[in-house]
Amino acid sequence: MRIDSAAAAALLKEQQDILIICHESPDGDTTGSAFALAHALGRLGKRVRIACSDPLPRNCSFFTETFFQEEFLEKYVVAVDVADSKLFGDKLEAYKTCTDLCIDHHPTNTQYAKKLLLRPQAAATAEIIFEVIQKLGITVDKEIAQCLYTGLATDTGCFLYSNTTADTHRLAAQLMETGIDFAAINRLMFETKTPGRVAMEKLLYNDLKYYFDGRCAVICITRDMLEQTGASGEELEGLASLPRQIEGVEVGVTMKQREDRASFKVSVRTNTQADASKICGLLGGGGHAKAAGCLVMGGIEEARMKILDAVKACL
Amino acid sequence: MRIDSAAAAALLKEQQDILIICHESPDGDTTGSAFALAHALGRLGKRVRIACSDPLPRNCSFFTETFFQEEFLEKYVVAVDVADSKLFGDKLEAYKTCTDLCIDHHPTNTQYAKKLLLRPQAAATAEIIFEVIQKLGITVDKEIAQCLYTGLATDTGCFLYSNTTADTHRLAAQLMETGIDFAAINRLMFETKTPGRVAMEKLLYNDLKYYFDGRCAVICITRDMLEQTGASGEELEGLASLPRQIEGVEVGVTMKQREDRASFKVSVRTNTQADASKICGLLGGGGHAKAAGCLVMGGIEEARMKILDAVKACL
Repeated sequence: MRIDSAAAAALLKEQQDILIICHESPDGDTTGSAFALAHALGRLGKRVRIACSDPLPRNCSFFTETFFQEEFLEKYVVAVDVADSKLFGDKLEAYKTCTDLCIDHHPTNTQYAKKLLLRPQAAATAEIIFEVIQKLGITVDKEIAQCLYTGLATDTGCFLYSNTTADTHRLAAQLMETGIDFAAINRLMFETKTPGRVAMEKLLYNDLKYYFDGRCAVICITRDMLEQTGASGEELEGLASLPRQIEGVEVGVTMKQREDRASFKVSVRTNTQADASKICGLLGGGGHAKAAGCLVMGGIEEARMKILDAVKACL
Repeated sequence: MRIDSAAAAALLKEQQDILIICHESPDGDTTGSAFALAHALGRLGKRVRIACSDPLPRNCSFFTETFFQEEFLEKYVVAVDVADSKLFGDKLEAYKTCTDLCIDHHPTNTQYAKKLLLRPQAAATAEIIFEVIQKLGITVDKEIAQCLYTGLATDTGCFLYSNTTADTHRLAAQLMETGIDFAAINRLMFETKTPGRVAMEKLLYNDLKYYFDGRCAVICITRDMLEQTGASGEELEGLASLPRQIEGVEVGVTMKQREDRASFKVSVRTNTQADASKICGLLGGGGHAKAAGCLVMGGIEEARMKILDAVKACL
């Protein structure tokens, strides 16, 4: 059942023991939303715990660990920024069918929770959490603001992406006025690279190849590269966008070798008229005009030739 | 003489022919400020021209060229975002001593203009131009808003840097509500790399070296690299920050070979206690605790050894 922020706040006020769940491979929005809500509920005297199947993101390390310390039995289960209960991950399997409340901004939310506060026009779940906290009657101070700011900045790429709204900026202004060190948060999230990430970028720059007079660029992330650098999934984030960011490139292709070493997950991004879904369609995949994907069997060079043939047919 | 935005607007209203000057090596703030003001003054029936010693930035190509077309003689000279008349550049030498009005946010402004509207707390000159346009009684529409947004986003690194204020965000919100395609502006400014830039990044990733257990990272931009890639100054922007962005690096060093090929301009950035000004002081340079510079004579390896000795002494 869909509810609004006032109803969500009323439900939370009735509870004493609350478990907040983040999605697996957690990012700054699910984590920031969870901690902001936990701090607010804590101030109302509630016992609150946060749970996540995976460790917290490295670049959100300023969140306190307090909320992980002890267990309690009867609890009200709240999922934040989790579009599908599948995303609870292995360790939280038990909660998949008993989520009392879900607060989310993904239009694809599968409505798995008993009550759902969903606002698809919000750039980040943190925007909705801000409203719930206000309805709880709790003042958004510096501690809460830094969590919410992290959520906002994460999901908008620091106010860069098209999902950013005027409301996002106004909320950022309000959060900044609590005195948070937003520049330090941004530095940690957007301007810090791990040595593994740097090693991976080096390999990909060396691997980058142009085709069709620079109209197509291809990079290939191989299992060897992953082994050599030890880069984790978190460290690979955003790397796939390199080819399409190059001026003059109409079709950017990122090939990622699968564990079997005999096939590639291929992502195609287009900047102009070239149709990514048509290119991937020729290879048995699909998607949207600007972003599509497919699975291509074969060794590196064999797979690359198949992909280039499809690109050629659509340029 | 320092004046406020109302006085600046009153002065502009009295004029008929206005020349707006941008600083050399123009960025999005000087250009965006100039075009926003030109559009506003044009709507008041003024004849306005924009002048700059260098070509406009590649990533601000959506600005119209109208304001460059014809010449006129008697004019009121307005410099925007120009801290020092030296920055007028060679082609505008003649205007260095006859600037009627300067609108700027650099605290280092040398007060070269007859009247100065200076607001050092503004993140971008575009913020001050917005206020002047309001005082002119002109509505900030989409055309003006996209120029001002470009200025704001440029000087704050898309709201990432510590100079961003709550007011910056509130102004961004207001500009976005005119319906500008801010995401396209951001993509062009922050997510597009020229092939020359990509070639340069590849060379620098390959050149990157770690020292003292990863506590120091060094990159070196050589004349050969510049010749090989053909990268322009604009294409090098921000590259120097690579070493200090790496997790665990306390001292990031960027060496840039000078044209004589016998010396290096060295920039040192520190993340922790290590004192950049002390390191550069040992090499005859100076600066601040977190950012300093010096000039080191010698070939690449000789210069690198001198720098590493100084870093070692301060780690």
